[in-house]
Amino acid sequence: MVKNLKRVKALKQIAFEEKGFDGFLIFNWANLLYLVGFPGATCLLTTRDDESYVYVYGVNYEQARAEGRGLKIELVRHDENLMAKTAKQVKACGIKKLATDTLSFEEHRSLAREIRGGTKLKLQGNLVWRLRKIKDETERGLMRRAGELTSEGMRVAYESIKAGVKEYEVAAEIEYAMRRKGSCGTAFETIVASGARSAFPHGGCTDREIRGGDLVVVDVGAAYQFYHSDMTRTLVAGKPSEKQKRLYEIVKLAQEKAFQEIKPRAKAKNVDAIARNVIEEAGYGEYFVHSLGHGIGLETHEPPSLGPISKDKLVTGNIVTNEPGIYLVGFGGIRIEDSVLVQKHGAEKLTHWPYSLEAEK
Amino acid sequence: MVKNLKRVKALKQIAFEEKGFDGFLIFNWANLLYLVGFPGATCLLTTRDDESYVYVYGVNYEQARAEGRGLKIELVRHDENLMAKTAKQVKACGIKKLATDTLSFEEHRSLAREIRGGTKLKLQGNLVWRLRKIKDETERGLMRRAGELTSEGMRVAYESIKAGVKEYEVAAEIEYAMRRKGSCGTAFETIVASGARSAFPHGGCTDREIRGGDLVVVDVGAAYQFYHSDMTRTLVAGKPSEKQKRLYEIVKLAQEKAFQEIKPRAKAKNVDAIARNVIEEAGYGEYFVHSLGHGIGLETHEPPSLGPISKDKLVTGNIVTNEPGIYLVGFGGIRIEDSVLVQKHGAEKLTHWPYSLEAEK
Repeated sequence: MVKNLKRVKALKQIAFEEKGFDGFLIFNWANLLYLVGFPGATCLLTTRDDESYVYVYGVNYEQARAEGRGLKIELVRHDENLMAKTAKQVKACGIKKLATDTLSFEEHRSLAREIRGGTKLKLQGNLVWRLRKIKDETERGLMRRAGELTSEGMRVAYESIKAGVKEYEVAAEIEYAMRRKGSCGTAFETIVASGARSAFPHGGCTDREIRGGDLVVVDVGAAYQFYHSDMTRTLVAGKPSEKQKRLYEIVKLAQEKAFQEIKPRAKAKNVDAIARNVIEEAGYGEYFVHSLGHGIGLETHEPPSLGPISKDKLVTGNIVTNEPGIYLVGFGGIRIEDSVLVQKHGAEKLTHWPYSLEAEK
Repeated sequence: MVKNLKRVKALKQIAFEEKGFDGFLIFNWANLLYLVGFPGATCLLTTRDDESYVYVYGVNYEQARAEGRGLKIELVRHDENLMAKTAKQVKACGIKKLATDTLSFEEHRSLAREIRGGTKLKLQGNLVWRLRKIKDETERGLMRRAGELTSEGMRVAYESIKAGVKEYEVAAEIEYAMRRKGSCGTAFETIVASGARSAFPHGGCTDREIRGGDLVVVDVGAAYQFYHSDMTRTLVAGKPSEKQKRLYEIVKLAQEKAFQEIKPRAKAKNVDAIARNVIEEAGYGEYFVHSLGHGIGLETHEPPSLGPISKDKLVTGNIVTNEPGIYLVGFGGIRIEDSVLVQKHGAEKLTHWPYSLEAEK
């Protein structure tokens, strides 16, 4: 069976057999990509019958027909109302209890109006997340490759960073190296934040010239066949100071201890707490200003969350980031991050590069 | 006055003086970037008083304090409910008629619940678009720069494309060239679609090796200080065939004629019709499977739309793409695109590269 049809079948199992729905309308682009296997679909309707309907605008129609084997491709003309068109099919299929994944307020109003009388509509985006947050073998392979490409970018970052080079020049070298090896663009805007800007977790990448002694946070992610990776290292252009070294060791220990706890059945908030405790005990708790990590896959930020208020429990197949940090305004910031796959016995790092504060080894 | 405060003032003028609201809550990331001038804000509340409140999570708090001059920065802790927190301020300011820009169904429900009793809530995203679709002088400068960077990428595309080179290798060269000149990543995933894949308007970029005689559609956009550009050229690896040349001339003429009509007071659907007529008269109408163009700025797709059912009328300061195409499944596709600024007398191209079907000139 085609991979995407397997996923549609798994969704139907949960939504129809377990939850009692008899139709599911998918609108979110990443959910669509996950379920139908090609980009450019606008909507998917699955029913209790074997048929699944994929709605596509003209601009993507021929591509969908070529790549969407096993699915019924429906052309949406630009003068057609998508909600009215899908609602008509919902009625034709006799659907009484319709689930949907995610809608804006206006879209929900429009769809609810079109299906009124006999069909109940309920948001159930969480049901798709139950599938997407556990990566299957195909996805694990793609995520491994995305991780390798990202690691290649980091290798080049360590080669490129020195006093006198501009942040965006480093980003250019990183992205070029990843692209040359087969990366499909970047998962997010590459961060090369040096000096005082390294204290901003989302410090971006400017035309600032890196100076000797600067902390430089490099946060980078390749994309491979739509799957994202995410990795951070922090290094110093030149010789690190004692304080930089001391802070680095704290973050490194926090990341290492958290990694040991990433395994099936671990409570996500406990993994966060382990890293947070290391940093708190060193006296820098208030400067670790974000969660320890987040799920990652087709999107850079997905469930499960590794944070203090997370209710998630890890299971085999989750892929999460492990990224503690300390950010001192005026001084600079340090973050160390890997993407990590939860395995049956422990965890597997998908990104690989030595934990070194020094550019030259 | 700081640029972003000017924009908040302009929004208040429309929403409060003209439409009678007394508060506006902004959630959309691009609207936030436009109004507050820095990334990472989660929400903005403007009121009839001089004060505007910017809500920011801890991860972006210090950056917001450093970059958000003139705005009141409010920290949102991770265990706080954002809707409850903003609703509390809405009540404290005595707001009776609250506008908001864009919300998911769940967010709307949550906000409506929090402000119930005395405050009316209405979606008014269109009011922000009234501002955003007319680019101010600062934005025009940034868009010109983004266009120059994109044109540099296209120059390199023409240099790189030849038989034996892979699509993603061309993308690597394009993106590297743009980055080296100061581009902040790409506006969207670069398209280098060759051979049969060029017939898919969103054909992406694969590891396919370009062959002699292939049509290659190159669709690329630099980003500069968050502003996007968009440009397409189509070329042949090697010597074009007579049919390729004939189709190219049709698309080129369609683009040229449409460009002549891009001016203040032109109806957007008429501009689309001019290009479409050229292609229809040549007998390829059914193969021009998308709209002529779209607005562009902080996002790659914005109002106004240049399409058959568009209700927009162009005004000075709009920036739109002009991108007719012909896509023949099995044969290949041709698209030519520039980003164009509507000026007082006619239009200004922001992307520049010769219209040539041949890689070597």
